[in-house]
Amino acid sequence: MTVFDLSNYLGEKIPSSLSEPWDNDGDMVIPDRNAEVTGVLCALDCTSGAIARAKALGCNVILAHHPLIFKPLSRLTDTDSVGKRVLDCVKSGIAVLSYHTRLDCLAGGVNDCLAQTLGLENVTAFLPYGRMGDVSEQSFETFLSHVGKALGTEELQCVKANPTVRKVALVSGSGKDEITHALRAGADTFVTGEASHSAMLDCKELGLNLICATHYATERVVLPFLQELVCSAGLRGELYPFHREAEYGI
Amino acid sequence: MTVFDLSNYLGEKIPSSLSEPWDNDGDMVIPDRNAEVTGVLCALDCTSGAIARAKALGCNVILAHHPLIFKPLSRLTDTDSVGKRVLDCVKSGIAVLSYHTRLDCLAGGVNDCLAQTLGLENVTAFLPYGRMGDVSEQSFETFLSHVGKALGTEELQCVKANPTVRKVALVSGSGKDEITHALRAGADTFVTGEASHSAMLDCKELGLNLICATHYATERVVLPFLQELVCSAGLRGELYPFHREAEYGI
Amino acid sequence: MTVFDLSNYLGEKIPSSLSEPWDNDGDMVIPDRNAEVTGVLCALDCTSGAIARAKALGCNVILAHHPLIFKPLSRLTDTDSVGKRVLDCVKSGIAVLSYHTRLDCLAGGVNDCLAQTLGLENVTAFLPYGRMGDVSEQSFETFLSHVGKALGTEELQCVKANPTVRKVALVSGSGKDEITHALRAGADTFVTGEASHSAMLDCKELGLNLICATHYATERVVLPFLQELVCSAGLRGELYPFHREAEYGI
Amino acid sequence: MTVFDLSNYLGEKIPSSLSEPWDNDGDMVIPDRNAEVTGVLCALDCTSGAIARAKALGCNVILAHHPLIFKPLSRLTDTDSVGKRVLDCVKSGIAVLSYHTRLDCLAGGVNDCLAQTLGLENVTAFLPYGRMGDVSEQSFETFLSHVGKALGTEELQCVKANPTVRKVALVSGSGKDEITHALRAGADTFVTGEASHSAMLDCKELGLNLICATHYATERVVLPFLQELVCSAGLRGELYPFHREAEYGI
Amino acid sequence: MTVFDLSNYLGEKIPSSLSEPWDNDGDMVIPDRNAEVTGVLCALDCTSGAIARAKALGCNVILAHHPLIFKPLSRLTDTDSVGKRVLDCVKSGIAVLSYHTRLDCLAGGVNDCLAQTLGLENVTAFLPYGRMGDVSEQSFETFLSHVGKALGTEELQCVKANPTVRKVALVSGSGKDEITHALRAGADTFVTGEASHSAMLDCKELGLNLICATHYATERVVLPFLQELVCSAGLRGELYPFHREAEYGI
Amino acid sequence: MTVFDLSNYLGEKIPSSLSEPWDNDGDMVIPDRNAEVTGVLCALDCTSGAIARAKALGCNVILAHHPLIFKPLSRLTDTDSVGKRVLDCVKSGIAVLSYHTRLDCLAGGVNDCLAQTLGLENVTAFLPYGRMGDVSEQSFETFLSHVGKALGTEELQCVKANPTVRKVALVSGSGKDEITHALRAGADTFVTGEASHSAMLDCKELGLNLICATHYATERVVLPFLQELVCSAGLRGELYPFHREAEYGI
Repeated sequence: MTVFDLSNYLGEKIPSSLSEPWDNDGDMVIPDRNAEVTGVLCALDCTSGAIARAKALGCNVILAHHPLIFKPLSRLTDTDSVGKRVLDCVKSGIAVLSYHTRLDCLAGGVNDCLAQTLGLENVTAFLPYGRMGDVSEQSFETFLSHVGKALGTEELQCVKANPTVRKVALVSGSGKDEITHALRAGADTFVTGEASHSAMLDCKELGLNLICATHYATERVVLPFLQELVCSAGLRGELYPFHREAEYGI
Repeated sequence: MTVFDLSNYLGEKIPSSLSEPWDNDGDMVIPDRNAEVTGVLCALDCTSGAIARAKALGCNVILAHHPLIFKPLSRLTDTDSVGKRVLDCVKSGIAVLSYHTRLDCLAGGVNDCLAQTLGLENVTAFLPYGRMGDVSEQSFETFLSHVGKALGTEELQCVKANPTVRKVALVSGSGKDEITHALRAGADTFVTGEASHSAMLDCKELGLNLICATHYATERVVLPFLQELVCSAGLRGELYPFHREAEYGI
Repeated sequence: MTVFDLSNYLGEKIPSSLSEPWDNDGDMVIPDRNAEVTGVLCALDCTSGAIARAKALGCNVILAHHPLIFKPLSRLTDTDSVGKRVLDCVKSGIAVLSYHTRLDCLAGGVNDCLAQTLGLENVTAFLPYGRMGDVSEQSFETFLSHVGKALGTEELQCVKANPTVRKVALVSGSGKDEITHALRAGADTFVTGEASHSAMLDCKELGLNLICATHYATERVVLPFLQELVCSAGLRGELYPFHREAEYGI
Repeated sequence: MTVFDLSNYLGEKIPSSLSEPWDNDGDMVIPDRNAEVTGVLCALDCTSGAIARAKALGCNVILAHHPLIFKPLSRLTDTDSVGKRVLDCVKSGIAVLSYHTRLDCLAGGVNDCLAQTLGLENVTAFLPYGRMGDVSEQSFETFLSHVGKALGTEELQCVKANPTVRKVALVSGSGKDEITHALRAGADTFVTGEASHSAMLDCKELGLNLICATHYATERVVLPFLQELVCSAGLRGELYPFHREAEYGI
Repeated sequence: MTVFDLSNYLGEKIPSSLSEPWDNDGDMVIPDRNAEVTGVLCALDCTSGAIARAKALGCNVILAHHPLIFKPLSRLTDTDSVGKRVLDCVKSGIAVLSYHTRLDCLAGGVNDCLAQTLGLENVTAFLPYGRMGDVSEQSFETFLSHVGKALGTEELQCVKANPTVRKVALVSGSGKDEITHALRAGADTFVTGEASHSAMLDCKELGLNLICATHYATERVVLPFLQELVCSAGLRGELYPFHREAEYGI
Repeated sequence: MTVFDLSNYLGEKIPSSLSEPWDNDGDMVIPDRNAEVTGVLCALDCTSGAIARAKALGCNVILAHHPLIFKPLSRLTDTDSVGKRVLDCVKSGIAVLSYHTRLDCLAGGVNDCLAQTLGLENVTAFLPYGRMGDVSEQSFETFLSHVGKALGTEELQCVKANPTVRKVALVSGSGKDEITHALRAGADTFVTGEASHSAMLDCKELGLNLICATHYATERVVLPFLQELVCSAGLRGELYPFHREAEYGI
């Protein structure tokens, strides 16, 4: 199976009709569309660390959730963050594919993986990407602790506006613009990756609990799903789980 | 001194020529411009908590760093976060004034207070609001711990890209768009309040240490400065320090 | 019935799907959505005069045809025309609701009331809000005099381009942009509230009689309709008829 | 002197640097730039009436204050108001020139003529086109009657917000957007040609007397000035004074 | 039949629903819509030469493929290329009609005429205006020579990227933006009127033969079709074939 | 000297302050900024042919007049014209630099080289990039033949609107938007690379001779200038003259 075949295969499984209109996704870098795929590394981001791992494992495709090229490139140089990684991939013959917002929306995609990891029941969609579900009635503190353990992170920021949790809305990644939608859908608690200071104050004013569990921890739950997708195409799929230590250096 | 006089006094001390062009600052709510000022509460945000405190202290002016009205209001109702606070202020006869980005840029304002709190030396401006300065050479871990103590917060997110810290750039609040400017100015380390996931990865790729010390902790350092300004006008100035427990409920 | 209930009731009777896309209508000011409605004053505009009357009559809702807030508010102060009236309403606990262009379009709304007041027959719509109908053949002067009497105004500006009137188009308020539409629909005469100098010259050139009978006189005919609507909800409805003397001071 | 020479002569006397940026002025129609000027008709608008008068008087130039072409023409046909007049001019060999907003602003131009006609003293400019001046203290009714007589019109709409007149601001034509500027400049009374209903209510709320004396009556005062300008170039200048009867047909 | 009747007749045969959204077509100049049509000159452009011919032949309508007015006119003077021709037409009582992009798209219109002239088989549309068809397998040089003869021009620019021609795409006039569409549709060779330098390089890089046979030669093939349309309305139709010598002076 | 040094050197000699605001120029592709420059190929375009030549000659920099990346890249794949060339350069370690419009404007740059090649005298600038000069009075045909020989091309398109040539304006590349400027500057003849059909008709109507001598032939005259610039930096400069046969395949 060539890189071109894999791109077509994934484009069918994760159709571009699901993408947000402002997004730039799909093929990011294709040094040689006729190259045989030697292995696929599934990662959250196409970082220098991920590229090094792909080389070490002999993978010539990186399937990265976030688009490596988001703002179109006016030039390609080794002095900026994106350019040096694109150059590194081209020189090493590594293709990069990203499905971003269409993967957020996909049935079984990022937000469904997140809902499942948190153990929500009666899950419904309150936005193309947002999910909503029930938990057994519990205190905010109990639920907060559960979220940290389920997502494997201690980096939690939160707003407590209700003592009890029953109805949970979630948006993986950055959910600062979905607070009003979550409220209207009937949620008492909103889980997302990151939110601005003023979004946090709005939650408090409007009576919505908020748990920010980091951008990466709310999204890396999709990596096994991507790996399975790769394997279903008869290819070797490798995991590059997002480790804060590796990526943030600490 | 009336509310109108105070607005004019502060407008001279913190001139609107310093404001970013996209900002909305100055008078936010003026229920009665001829009312005598009974006291001024200096706060980061005009939250429900700040309004309650103003009432308790008999202050009829809140001097809030962040604009209460940022996106212009198409209607004024008690069902949205801003509307209910504006209504509360009007009913209680409380005026609200905000100086936001012009206070960020002002000599002696938010970013200068932040530089001073962190103990930077040879401080210069690398943007109208950004500040730059030296620290004695130290390990990243030592500096990180120093920032937490100086700002009184344990909520620290960071990227370690250099082992040593010498030249520190800072932007209070949200500094995700200033990374390239900080690098070009020669910084090895960048302190700000909050940054997005992709900005954190860029820091790592480009070799810039990043310390996110929360939006509020990098800005509340300006409150004593505001209080002093109020007192210099012969008025009673009260402090409403931003407590995470009070504002975020936890 | 609370203010919130009334807002929902009127929103069903005058649906927002009829609004022009550029309009800002519906809830204008809601100091307390759970307050019991004590009475509703039906007015063309939420002027200081209307607010004073509402207070005198014990009404805590003003149903004003024109939106009190049209251009969104960047600040709320007592130094501008809209701000001082919004502040007055909030301090007095008076809610303001406006239905503007959707009421212009509504079957039975402003333009239908105007057609009926002028005695048009075989009335049809030539635009969502414009209406068209027949009168018995008469001289322009006879029809002009009829319009003045029917609408109770002596303030008439006009263009005479045809000696005879048979087919009348009308647009309440400001109809300067609808001249071509009226012509294409077959009208010989166009009645509206106000028109610019160049629109008047266009009518003369194109052969369309024009009668400008003031903005207020072509719209106040809807007030009894609003009053009825209020009464049908089981509430007390009061009229604040637009008197040029009261509102313009002369 | 050719039409081309006259266009250059007027362009020097009324320089385009004074034009508002949104305006379209200067040459409107030039059927033959080398034709000798046989006479110049000075008019407010290039109406069918003005064109007929030019023909009758043997003038092959119309100097019209308002631009005949304002919205650029996508086609030139005899079915729309502007097209038929352009066609009429071309067929009759009549050139049309307009100086609109630059003539409003010019020293000695429209607004200065208006100030002089109204007898204002100590005249200053509060906007490039707006003028401001003093009158001896008098009642609003006395001043209103004076305006009607000075401008020769009975078509007056007004708002009375102060009993006394001392400081008068004026903007010829349509002045609905200059109310706040007039207030800030210290006026108690504002004279203009036409204003919308909501502008009239704003005047009442803000305490500014308003007199709308029709678009044409506040501008036709400039016609003798234009005639003099034409004569100063050694050409025959004729007047086409704006008569409501002729232009509006009544 | 009047000019107005002819405009309506052609508007039915070549409906405006086919026009590209950015186009300005239909009536260009109508000096008198009630004039009886004395003859119709069918031309590619309403040039001075075409106007002179229309006068000589006693035709008072020019049916020009390209819009005489494309960029709307802010003024009408004899100093610019379009203005002087519009003035000439008005003074001579000549109406101008243009159908441009809707005629490009029409079944039987410009592109179908071009496909037929080139002898393509199995013609299909690959864009509303683009056409696609087969030729018997031949060398690029043979096909190039065929195009020159069929279109009667020696002015040929080309890119040879394949030795053999089988599948030909064509877009009359300027086809520089349709290269990618032609490739995706399966063409090996693309015929158009004119293309930019960088479009020519793209063809070479992407492996698509390109033949630019001048703007006029790829479009004048539609003139007999227009003549027939005119005759079908019972009118005299005359041809003004585009001669490079006459129009370009050489 | 490294690639980075060369980029800085050329940026000083051809300063970016001369660039048109819409242009994208300077660094295009920099695979390794610290690589020593092994040779510089000076070309009009970074085509596949130019890249192959650079490899053959052992040059790792291509100095191409036209920007390889003009429209920013949303993805980098080997299926589009630009992407495959960028990939080829990166894989081969070849940097690409372009100075485009700033080189057009530069004293001694493209347009000055063109004026010199054509033997113009008393050369002045009529636009930042356009040049103007005198020739001895001669017939249009004589001058046309001279242009073809001087530029070494037989591909000439032209408009003859004056029999005699004295004052020549020129704009290298695509000059279709500068016709009016050339006329106003007093030219009787305009030389450029390519022009649209409607620009050619405008020249005829307005009385300006036009000679289109192909995009490439009017620009390749700058290549020796670029070579000299490279040599002045102590580097090996090679020429890749634009041959129509090589680049267009014919």
